[in-house]
Amino acid sequence: MMRAVILAAGEGKRLRHHFKAPKPLVRLLGLSLIERNILALKECGINDFVIITGCYFSEIQSHLGNGNKLGVNITYLHNPEWELGNGVSAYTFQREYRQGEKFVLIMSDHVFELKAIKAFIAEAKKINEGEILLAADRRLKNVYDLMECTKIKFEQDYALELGKELQDFNAVDCGLFLCTGALLEALSDKISQCRYTLTDAVNMLASKHRVKLHFINAAWIDVDDLPSYRHAEKMVLRSLVPPKDGFVSRVLNRKVSLLITKLFARTGITPNQVTFVSFLISAVSAVFFALGYPLYGGMLAQVSSIFDGVDGEIGRLKFLKSSYGGLLDAVLDRYADFLIVIGMAYSWYSKTENTVVLLACAAALTGLPMSMLLKEKFHALTGRPFIPESYDGIFRYLPANRDGRMFIIMLGGVLNLVPAALFFLAVITHLQALVRLYNIRQLM
Amino acid sequence: MMRAVILAAGEGKRLRHHFKAPKPLVRLLGLSLIERNILALKECGINDFVIITGCYFSEIQSHLGNGNKLGVNITYLHNPEWELGNGVSAYTFQREYRQGEKFVLIMSDHVFELKAIKAFIAEAKKINEGEILLAADRRLKNVYDLMECTKIKFEQDYALELGKELQDFNAVDCGLFLCTGALLEALSDKISQCRYTLTDAVNMLASKHRVKLHFINAAWIDVDDLPSYRHAEKMVLRSLVPPKDGFVSRVLNRKVSLLITKLFARTGITPNQVTFVSFLISAVSAVFFALGYPLYGGMLAQVSSIFDGVDGEIGRLKFLKSSYGGLLDAVLDRYADFLIVIGMAYSWYSKTENTVVLLACAAALTGLPMSMLLKEKFHALTGRPFIPESYDGIFRYLPANRDGRMFIIMLGGVLNLVPAALFFLAVITHLQALVRLYNIRQLM
Repeated sequence: MMRAVILAAGEGKRLRHHFKAPKPLVRLLGLSLIERNILALKECGINDFVIITGCYFSEIQSHLGNGNKLGVNITYLHNPEWELGNGVSAYTFQREYRQGEKFVLIMSDHVFELKAIKAFIAEAKKINEGEILLAADRRLKNVYDLMECTKIKFEQDYALELGKELQDFNAVDCGLFLCTGALLEALSDKISQCRYTLTDAVNMLASKHRVKLHFINAAWIDVDDLPSYRHAEKMVLRSLVPPKDGFVSRVLNRKVSLLITKLFARTGITPNQVTFVSFLISAVSAVFFALGYPLYGGMLAQVSSIFDGVDGEIGRLKFLKSSYGGLLDAVLDRYADFLIVIGMAYSWYSKTENTVVLLACAAALTGLPMSMLLKEKFHALTGRPFIPESYDGIFRYLPANRDGRMFIIMLGGVLNLVPAALFFLAVITHLQALVRLYNIRQLM
Repeated sequence: MMRAVILAAGEGKRLRHHFKAPKPLVRLLGLSLIERNILALKECGINDFVIITGCYFSEIQSHLGNGNKLGVNITYLHNPEWELGNGVSAYTFQREYRQGEKFVLIMSDHVFELKAIKAFIAEAKKINEGEILLAADRRLKNVYDLMECTKIKFEQDYALELGKELQDFNAVDCGLFLCTGALLEALSDKISQCRYTLTDAVNMLASKHRVKLHFINAAWIDVDDLPSYRHAEKMVLRSLVPPKDGFVSRVLNRKVSLLITKLFARTGITPNQVTFVSFLISAVSAVFFALGYPLYGGMLAQVSSIFDGVDGEIGRLKFLKSSYGGLLDAVLDRYADFLIVIGMAYSWYSKTENTVVLLACAAALTGLPMSMLLKEKFHALTGRPFIPESYDGIFRYLPANRDGRMFIIMLGGVLNLVPAALFFLAVITHLQALVRLYNIRQLM
């Protein structure tokens, strides 16, 4: 399996000033910059890391150790001449290089959205001996602090020239490489000419048409100073929202849940703990409904729904996602739904003793698990995730998924319309099940 | 992709007498013998078939056509000299053989359990050029009509000698081969020596240590006469019971459902139609419960549960299994459960007006979908099917799966113990969910 080399030799003066820590160890939303890159690469299947240290080698070593804590293997190479340039640091890997090996080279202080790294590694496997692959961004308008970037002039996926001062350019260098021995040879050549930066060596390969570009399609940033640090925080938080998010979740819940996640990030709170908290809030909501306080019941239901997003966000943020967590969340969400609906029905029935309540309650209770049941059975049978956009048609706007259902419950409570909310839940959940059964049959 | 050659040239006198059809076209549980082999191989990913005809070539061609009906491609080779021996028929494939190709060779009148063919094809991919792979059975005590079989003497997975009259043998030939060009060369040699059977050629290869054996671990039979036909029927029916069957299903439901499946096999009844019938019976059961006839309600619940096995059996029997069928069955089963529980609660409540009934009903309704929900979510998250033996521990004997739950409902109705049945359902379904959550956490 491929190894990754992380360049962490520089001084990073501008951030040191604010954080009193070497730049790779600056914590961003609960993980140091270097930890985030290690864990992201681990998600892509890379388990062996070589960290090249310079300025703050002892701090970095004592922070990461042998990698055990992160579930990876870390070895260190020290470059006492780190001040000469990052090319000299990168060349230190020559001592450890195994003939014919391909390796990832990444800057410790660049932050990437996970999907950017995943896409890069997926393409990396196809690179030819003698070439290198460089992650580049051609969406120049979106690039943060263009001035500080290393620019690239490219033609047809191959870099022609690189440089910080390049005037004629159409992409920038993102600091993520897939290297072959060719890079080490180029570094050796350049260092013997007293040209000490990585860009010098890459430029030489580019002139031989050997630097292939992978154009990044997700967010990334070079964390250099306080504004870029703040920008990185926002970028990482935004990336935690899953692509297939419900409507209510997207326009309402995520606005709050991301703030909570940001707050929780610096603590040791785990996703499963948040899952439990969300369940408890639902249970309290059910009690308020049952005791005849629908206003509080409704508000708490919405709070619970917001917390229901936080567990996943923390899981993705800190690379703590687990299958068990997903299962626990799914089961507790169902129980939370059941309790709230029973609470609503109880309060209504104890007032009216109308048996229609019981019917509505039974219909809502049986409808609640149907959305998930159909999705998961579909996934298990076909091996493909269920995509509401494909199979729900215009019914995907029905608030029958959890974020929508909890919103209905909130409205029912806050507007004191518990019976209407119960009936509505009963109708939409079963309607969605029928629509799914029908549409899947047509499209399968 | 690999092609399969089917030998269907013989006369098969003994069965002709009973069925008034050429042996490959004799229908067994709704499919002709040759159709069953084609569809089984199709499930293993084989789509191109070459059928070698002799005696009844026109009947066979008009029965199967170009394979469109079965979703495969069929071409025919006719051997007018079929009476000489099956080696001559097999050698007819020489005309179509593509240099270096590996192909499956199967007798049209042998019936195999699907998993036997699957295991054979899985091993077949590893066979070397110059060798052939032969499915053999060394469980001599289980072999049907040992006298009629071609015997094999083997040592360390390689056949040394074959023959119908062999005295010293330790396995028998199952009539399923994975061939390379080596077989056609051996057939050519033997035919030029006026030795016309397949066994002559295979024997020659065996003497050169080129016949590797694959030992079959599932049922198979050579259908030759009426007793072996009856035996094949039983064997195929038995194979329809899934390996992970519930306790009640295994000891009770399957005994009846297999009889129904046998009856339905000769009709065009589809699995989805049976799924609907099973649901309707449940709905009628719910009405009987609600109207105060628990005896009929209970009995119908058990009948519905039995029919719930028939859809899957017919699907497997006729190779009609579909993901959509699985989904439809899952959803309708849940609705059937819900209706019956509501019916039970209604009858009890209308008599007593005791609110405890409502609690029991809500608890049972919410518990019912949990068994499936946990299983499917587990499957979707981990990519592995949920295996009760691993994760339920001794709680796997809890009647909380559908066969068990329907049995409880039947007992509740027949013994006029509806309240007890409802409570019991409520307790065991939630208990099972908790046990699963706990055990999965320990074992995941």
